[in-house]
Amino acid sequence: MNQDYIKVDPWSIIEEGFDAKQVKSSESLFSLGNGAMGQRANFEEEYTGETFQGSYIAGVYYPDKTRVGWWKNGYPEYFAKVLNAPNWIGIEVLINEELVDLNTCKSVREFKRELNMREGWYQRSFTALLQNGVEISVRSTRFLSLDIDAVGAIKYEITPLNQDVEVIIAPYLDSGITNEDSNWDDKFWNTTNVDSEGSQAFIEAHTMKTNFATCTFMEAKLFYKGSPVEMKPHLKKTDSLIGLSYKQKVEKGEPFTLHKFGGYTVSRDHKESELVQVAKDALFSATTLGYEGLLQKQKEAWAKIWEMSDITINGDVKAQQGIRFNIFQLNQTYLGKDSRLNIGPKGFTGEKYGGSTYWDTEAYCLPFYMATKNQQVAWSLLEYRYNHLEKAIENAQKLGFKNGAALYPMVTMNGEECHNEWEITFEEIHRNGAISFAIYNYHRYTGDYSYIPKMGLEVLIGIARFWHQRVNFSEDKQQYVMLGVTGPNEYENNVNNNWYTSYLAKWCIDYTLEQLEIVKEICPKDYARIISKTNLTITETDDWAKVAGNIYFPYSEKHEVFLQQDGFLDKEMIKVEDLDKSDRPINQKWSWDRILRSPYIKQADVLQGFYFFEDHFSKESLEKHFDFYEPFTVHESSLSPCVHSIQAAKLDRMDQAYTFYLRTSRLDLDDYNKEVEEGLHITSMAGTWMSIVEGFGGMRILNNQLCFTPRIPKQWESYAFKINFRNQIITVTVSGQYTSFEITEGKELSIQVNDKPVSLIPGKVVQA
Amino acid sequence: MNQDYIKVDPWSIIEEGFDAKQVKSSESLFSLGNGAMGQRANFEEEYTGETFQGSYIAGVYYPDKTRVGWWKNGYPEYFAKVLNAPNWIGIEVLINEELVDLNTCKSVREFKRELNMREGWYQRSFTALLQNGVEISVRSTRFLSLDIDAVGAIKYEITPLNQDVEVIIAPYLDSGITNEDSNWDDKFWNTTNVDSEGSQAFIEAHTMKTNFATCTFMEAKLFYKGSPVEMKPHLKKTDSLIGLSYKQKVEKGEPFTLHKFGGYTVSRDHKESELVQVAKDALFSATTLGYEGLLQKQKEAWAKIWEMSDITINGDVKAQQGIRFNIFQLNQTYLGKDSRLNIGPKGFTGEKYGGSTYWDTEAYCLPFYMATKNQQVAWSLLEYRYNHLEKAIENAQKLGFKNGAALYPMVTMNGEECHNEWEITFEEIHRNGAISFAIYNYHRYTGDYSYIPKMGLEVLIGIARFWHQRVNFSEDKQQYVMLGVTGPNEYENNVNNNWYTSYLAKWCIDYTLEQLEIVKEICPKDYARIISKTNLTITETDDWAKVAGNIYFPYSEKHEVFLQQDGFLDKEMIKVEDLDKSDRPINQKWSWDRILRSPYIKQADVLQGFYFFEDHFSKESLEKHFDFYEPFTVHESSLSPCVHSIQAAKLDRMDQAYTFYLRTSRLDLDDYNKEVEEGLHITSMAGTWMSIVEGFGGMRILNNQLCFTPRIPKQWESYAFKINFRNQIITVTVSGQYTSFEITEGKELSIQVNDKPVSLIPGKVVQA
Repeated sequence: MNQDYIKVDPWSIIEEGFDAKQVKSSESLFSLGNGAMGQRANFEEEYTGETFQGSYIAGVYYPDKTRVGWWKNGYPEYFAKVLNAPNWIGIEVLINEELVDLNTCKSVREFKRELNMREGWYQRSFTALLQNGVEISVRSTRFLSLDIDAVGAIKYEITPLNQDVEVIIAPYLDSGITNEDSNWDDKFWNTTNVDSEGSQAFIEAHTMKTNFATCTFMEAKLFYKGSPVEMKPHLKKTDSLIGLSYKQKVEKGEPFTLHKFGGYTVSRDHKESELVQVAKDALFSATTLGYEGLLQKQKEAWAKIWEMSDITINGDVKAQQGIRFNIFQLNQTYLGKDSRLNIGPKGFTGEKYGGSTYWDTEAYCLPFYMATKNQQVAWSLLEYRYNHLEKAIENAQKLGFKNGAALYPMVTMNGEECHNEWEITFEEIHRNGAISFAIYNYHRYTGDYSYIPKMGLEVLIGIARFWHQRVNFSEDKQQYVMLGVTGPNEYENNVNNNWYTSYLAKWCIDYTLEQLEIVKEICPKDYARIISKTNLTITETDDWAKVAGNIYFPYSEKHEVFLQQDGFLDKEMIKVEDLDKSDRPINQKWSWDRILRSPYIKQADVLQGFYFFEDHFSKESLEKHFDFYEPFTVHESSLSPCVHSIQAAKLDRMDQAYTFYLRTSRLDLDDYNKEVEEGLHITSMAGTWMSIVEGFGGMRILNNQLCFTPRIPKQWESYAFKINFRNQIITVTVSGQYTSFEITEGKELSIQVNDKPVSLIPGKVVQA
Repeated sequence: MNQDYIKVDPWSIIEEGFDAKQVKSSESLFSLGNGAMGQRANFEEEYTGETFQGSYIAGVYYPDKTRVGWWKNGYPEYFAKVLNAPNWIGIEVLINEELVDLNTCKSVREFKRELNMREGWYQRSFTALLQNGVEISVRSTRFLSLDIDAVGAIKYEITPLNQDVEVIIAPYLDSGITNEDSNWDDKFWNTTNVDSEGSQAFIEAHTMKTNFATCTFMEAKLFYKGSPVEMKPHLKKTDSLIGLSYKQKVEKGEPFTLHKFGGYTVSRDHKESELVQVAKDALFSATTLGYEGLLQKQKEAWAKIWEMSDITINGDVKAQQGIRFNIFQLNQTYLGKDSRLNIGPKGFTGEKYGGSTYWDTEAYCLPFYMATKNQQVAWSLLEYRYNHLEKAIENAQKLGFKNGAALYPMVTMNGEECHNEWEITFEEIHRNGAISFAIYNYHRYTGDYSYIPKMGLEVLIGIARFWHQRVNFSEDKQQYVMLGVTGPNEYENNVNNNWYTSYLAKWCIDYTLEQLEIVKEICPKDYARIISKTNLTITETDDWAKVAGNIYFPYSEKHEVFLQQDGFLDKEMIKVEDLDKSDRPINQKWSWDRILRSPYIKQADVLQGFYFFEDHFSKESLEKHFDFYEPFTVHESSLSPCVHSIQAAKLDRMDQAYTFYLRTSRLDLDDYNKEVEEGLHITSMAGTWMSIVEGFGGMRILNNQLCFTPRIPKQWESYAFKINFRNQIITVTVSGQYTSFEITEGKELSIQVNDKPVSLIPGKVVQA
């Protein structure tokens, strides 16, 4: 545990004491987001120490020109990346003409940060002794409104402790910002207008190339001794910065307070010409409510989210804090209001992983959003890919595929590929299968078939076409083989016949053929439209069936397991536990070639297939595969432990399941990978949720019915979670003694618990 | 043939007519070099059109910070690259105050370039009508002296054709130059002193980081109407440029001539403090001889080179020009005087391929230098690698190898790895074997064993150790396997059990064990020294033997061929001839993943092994392998056709052999790959030489004896080459009717021709 400076608390993340070395890590951990925008926990006032500045607007990106060592045909020319947006939180503070800067003041004491997850706000307070001898205490509270999602609010209170002083406080906007991960040090923003009106200020700027127009705005309200003060600001203005400077004599012990309202309006949602007006409207709404009124709304909105998505754990506060942190961050990142948005691996907490959407969304995040939100949210995630289908077809064409075959990108912002490492970009094609699987999973969980005839079937056809073209017939094997792929285990590159990818390919084709029959039967009009649009012929589907029926899967008779890929058994099979500690983590200690030829697995690969298609294999077979592969798995991806936790639970290995759970739930809080300063691992947080609900709770949908096989780690007294299953809200409480179920919304429901039928009636707690 | 503008001539490369689009290509084709320095055929006078400026000093490089898309552990942090050096050829010319610039003048006629390969000079002449109405003719001749290799000379003659004019001629030096392929636009040169003394000028500059100090120097001599003129120059001087400007009234029809002597002295060869003095000494020697005297020496030196290395072809002027161009460029690039130098793939003709030394040196260039130079030159090439042994051991350590295992770099300047593409840098390890093979080949050809006990055995041990550690034991196969390699065919990456690499590895170990026994026997002192230095134990060599005796080679019983790697037969085996033309070349038309999973071979892979170890396999087996692999070979490497030409000749398929020969011999002259403007393919030129001598001539060393199996393409009347075999100079002439041999230097020699013994006596022409 490297982050012991974070206090354990069930509802808050708390840091006490100032340590400059922790600033960047805390900037990640205390990040705020409201689905529409987000920001790292950068200080409002000047800070000349090490910091990683980041404000982000959902869906606003920049296509940076690709930079590689050696160009390979097929690389995308541009790499869309998350863009650091103009800063609206900045507040310059001078006390008797000395700039407040925690890096240069004489001393800092009583430094504390709190991220209140229950209510959705972040507070920082400290007492600083300045070079000029003045001691001040500062308390800054801020939140990004869920209610008016263009707006955030800051309450910044300064109290001189040892003398009367002159305070100059200057809230400002700044569009002269850069990205840390820029490839060519291009300028990403072009500022077109910097303006103020009384206590309001506006910066209009648009992104280069993508031309997203934005208005970054703010309004300042000042209070002295608790009462509003009307002051005329002194204006500070440059090409890309505007500040409103207020001067006030402040008596010792009296608080001088700024309420700063700020945020963005964006041309994604409004006409460019109206951005300033929309900003003014938002400020009007926010200031009418006032800081406290807006905060009250914030608390109510978060209460509603928690009401549906909270997981409680009794008897383990660390675990409680961990799971809530995960749920909180997922809700800060994506709320499903806008099908153009998706879930970036770092959310609004950093720049890394350039583009925003990975297969993480379909494989890990969808179950969380299906179970804790209304159905429309999951639909939005599926619709996102439907809207990118044309681009996926273009992407496949660039790689030589024909006839409407679709390859979804490894990483994307707008449907275009944004990744440039050949072994991943061109070869980690299993991502395509996860998109078909998500369609299946959505139907399985929600029972809603309407997505498939409306949108899903076209996606399924494009993907099936891809797989059909991607295999080739091996004369030698007299079977179809899939050469040159990278599986989920990225510690292997360019392998032949990766079992997971081939199995998924076969399943995608089979499932698509099945859905074609169903849609033909029940939605003949949709069927006719889709057949006509895609030019699908019987010859083609017959060819698909031929491939799906005769695809090669590497298998070891001796070990009775499917092999991760051809040649896996040629490796030097030393188990992870027999490696010297100095060799771990191998991704830091070993050269890349050594990693590649080793048997070590970065994240579930064959076992990912056993997770997706659990019902295709017996528990005995799962056990054989788990026992064969887990000992070689180094879990150096944040997405690995959750799948293993779920499977260990299924195999009744609760100690192991719990160990895996711990790694996933406090990955960032405890900074296992020593990289939290770059941002949080948002998508893997959904895996944590799965570990509890699907792993410990054993939730499944089998034969169209909700089923549970509850288990509990011996370290816990009890835990409880809620799910929205087909518009019934069900609370599940698991203790060592019993499991109880309660429908809090909805009608009667028949479920299975440990393979036995149980009837749930609204309002009644049923033990099973 | 894309370069039809180059005239066919047996001894010269000639361009007639000015075409701005051809300037960059011609700058490559007409490049000059003398082993110590070189330069592209840039114009001396101002040229504002498209040009690629390049002057290079042998062994002077810069470690540019590596730039990659995604960093992989083990990548070198710096990438040494060939450095564009200060320009000493520049001459500014003003006619009645108008700057002569072929890009802006009214018209250019009678533009001609000639590279006289027999005598080693380059001449350019033209008549230009300037904007101001003056017509001038210019003739510029230059060469880089083989005699005083710090010095080059230019004779620049200007004759006004239609009126008397005022000429200002300003020879200059310029260190304000850049590299086209800089990664971060770093400044590579720091100029410390710019100075002049009468008609001499000097710029002292050193490279950043590597701190090579250089003095770039020049001296000007002027002649009017054929007589020397003494003039005081007007000085032009900046931080990084110095020019000596001379003004002269020139009558219509009279030549005004500048002799410019220039070049470099370098801290690699002299004390930094003496560089200016050494430069003055060199200028004194050069100017004492004078331009004509120095040119006379140049002709004599080249005559001597041709005397030994010329190949004559009767009945095919294009082929004659092609082979001479190859031989000429090899001699311009490397003369074997300095074992710190080597043969860069682009020689002194461009920047590409950053570092200078590839496995090309050992696999392709060594035979040429062994047979056309004295033995010391080949020794220097071997010594180069011996001197880099420590760095090769460090390089292996970085990748996790232990105990003195050595991995020579893929690309290097100073022994450090300079390549950063994981599938090549870390995996194209067969290069290591080529270095052992070169040691064997040197002994086989020269009969000189002394290199092995003195230096070679240590290299062999380091390499054997690498192979021993690089394989692992497959429990499944009960054999040693080599996973995750890239063979010579770079259209496959990260494959298992590449036959060529594994076979070479086995051979390296066997050969090293054999040499250990021999050195122990015949040089016990050296043996003791080496064993002590390397800590080699019996246990270790026993382990080596175990690996070499049980290494796995993929083999197809059905096809009776060794397989290029595991899984090769799973590919979709469509022959190259059945591909659509629009698919070729695949490296331009296909995405990288598609290339990788295709069966197409970039350059000889299994067949490279059959070339190296020809005596291990029957001709029938060669034929089977040739017929199996050649149809899938796209020859998209300049190193591919020569090996195929040699083997086709051996199989008596002379038409095919000749076709391959043509592709290799005029690769640059005819610009097959449409990239000659980036520089010439120097190392593959040695392959051309091999195609004639080993391919058509069938030269081999078998059982310590020189052997020939001569053949001749039906397109040729006869051809002749010379070789230095163990200090006997033998001329071999092959015609359709007979082959004749003559020893021009040396004593009696018994050789084999078509498997029959033939005795050669000095001075006597023997027909066989």
